[in-house]
Amino acid sequence: MRRPLINEPDDLIAEALEGLALAHPRLLSLDPEHAFVSRRTKAADKVGLVSGGGSGHEPLHAGFVGAGMLDVAVAGAVFASPTALQILEGTRAADSGAGVIQIVKNYTGDVLNFRIAGEFAGDDDVATEIVLVDDDLATESEDGPGRRGTGATVFVEKIAGAAAERGLDLVSVAEVGRGIAERARSMSLALTAGTLPHQTSPQFDLPRDEVELGVGIHGERGVSRIPFAGADRLVEELAAPLERALGLNRGSRVILLVNGMGGTYPLEIQVATRAAHRYLTGRGIVIERVLAGSFVTSLDMHGVSLSILPVDDATLDLWDAPVTTAALNW
Amino acid sequence: MRRPLINEPDDLIAEALEGLALAHPRLLSLDPEHAFVSRRTKAADKVGLVSGGGSGHEPLHAGFVGAGMLDVAVAGAVFASPTALQILEGTRAADSGAGVIQIVKNYTGDVLNFRIAGEFAGDDDVATEIVLVDDDLATESEDGPGRRGTGATVFVEKIAGAAAERGLDLVSVAEVGRGIAERARSMSLALTAGTLPHQTSPQFDLPRDEVELGVGIHGERGVSRIPFAGADRLVEELAAPLERALGLNRGSRVILLVNGMGGTYPLEIQVATRAAHRYLTGRGIVIERVLAGSFVTSLDMHGVSLSILPVDDATLDLWDAPVTTAALNW
Repeated sequence: MRRPLINEPDDLIAEALEGLALAHPRLLSLDPEHAFVSRRTKAADKVGLVSGGGSGHEPLHAGFVGAGMLDVAVAGAVFASPTALQILEGTRAADSGAGVIQIVKNYTGDVLNFRIAGEFAGDDDVATEIVLVDDDLATESEDGPGRRGTGATVFVEKIAGAAAERGLDLVSVAEVGRGIAERARSMSLALTAGTLPHQTSPQFDLPRDEVELGVGIHGERGVSRIPFAGADRLVEELAAPLERALGLNRGSRVILLVNGMGGTYPLEIQVATRAAHRYLTGRGIVIERVLAGSFVTSLDMHGVSLSILPVDDATLDLWDAPVTTAALNW
Repeated sequence: MRRPLINEPDDLIAEALEGLALAHPRLLSLDPEHAFVSRRTKAADKVGLVSGGGSGHEPLHAGFVGAGMLDVAVAGAVFASPTALQILEGTRAADSGAGVIQIVKNYTGDVLNFRIAGEFAGDDDVATEIVLVDDDLATESEDGPGRRGTGATVFVEKIAGAAAERGLDLVSVAEVGRGIAERARSMSLALTAGTLPHQTSPQFDLPRDEVELGVGIHGERGVSRIPFAGADRLVEELAAPLERALGLNRGSRVILLVNGMGGTYPLEIQVATRAAHRYLTGRGIVIERVLAGSFVTSLDMHGVSLSILPVDDATLDLWDAPVTTAALNW
């Protein structure tokens, strides 16, 4: 049984955004009416970046608002898209005259509402470009809505953010962002699903000897069940398909994200990091950078995802560029 | 039922430290034999800072190694003190000729082993000073081992680290650290205890309508049970005793730490931050800085702690000084 540490469920997102803004008064401003946070000091003369989506994945997206990353993050209810109106207001707030990149995880509601917002923004002479993030290898198929957007959102937001900071124009930043989204892939597994704030039990149950492979970030079931095993073995079930899908070879250079899903404690994330690092290094892959922690979560889901981005020097340089946000800082 | 994402429990800490070092190759070095991490680039001509203790509280302490904070963090097994030999080697590694501050949370095993290590270090002409952290208001009593060390460790490690970076001598840095430890107090509550890596159930169970107040960071039971309630009400149960114990008045200036215990997801921490901020501000207290996140955890315990440090300009200036670690970065 899980009891949430919240007040009324209907007030959860508004209160949580207020709490985030109170914790970062010099970094963030809050628009309570439209449930978005933006940079306290608005950037001038650069392409704006807006992202957003359902809540429950924190620190995504509001934790990535700041110099070198997003200008605005719009929050929906838990696991529900923000409205087109919210996104429109967020897009307007992100604009400083050079147009706005909308970074959208590939879910039907998000895609629809961001598109509508983009059209209305155009009526105001705010030019927009959508960068769609669809990295979840588990949902690759010939038909249907395509791959879901998950962990690689961090790559896209960081690297497109750096490109915008350097003064690239709207189309160029969109190209950078799309290039990252095209190249990055993710795989996840869960030992326990997350528990919704108004419920007391996880969204699904697993037998004691099984693990859900290819799980989504909204409590979507995975694509298969595999036997419970040690971390090295389980992490290999994530890394090996990514290696194949990305065509990684000896000498391939990558950035690796090892991501806890919310209920995974740091010792576990560290053990998974070691496992992923050893597996990839053992295959001759060159891990240029590692980001390990809980960045794209699913409430208190106990699980882990790997995201891998093949990189060249230019991409690494954008990754390494300074960033000042609540969740990423270097 | 919780199943850990680890390999063999006996290998957990060694593997987790390796994973942390692999994630931060430019920041951290690992001594696998003595299970400590240290700054990759050793600081020269400054007072060294070593801390450590049982594992299971990550990112404490290894996540706080880096410029502006700790030089070395020594890891024991889960909830068990590192040995005196480990601490001795860590203390030696932290020394660059100006002596070493040992920051120790007030637990019998830690205090004993750090003291022994300090004596042996003295035989090698490494001067040491112990700064004891004993902030947990729930364990205040006339006799016994005194208050436990919990969340305020972050204040002590950050501020003493900044003092050392500025070139203060050993005794002066110790005075700064002790001043912080004397002034800071913490209170915590848990909705669910954490689950040990080799077990499948939490360390204790709570009735559906009760919350454990004054819980420790090792699954120690709290000092009382209070009714389950909304976050605002529960957070007031932490803030009000801290306000009284610290003698806070209208105009008192403080740093506030809102700390998740491991299984508390970011939306919950943000709601608790809002609650604490509103309570204290409503009493006329001036919140100069807020740190909100999971910094001193107890595996996957679902709970929250508040730590409050009354500050003046000089202390704020040390808090604001640059820091470059895995877990704190500004």
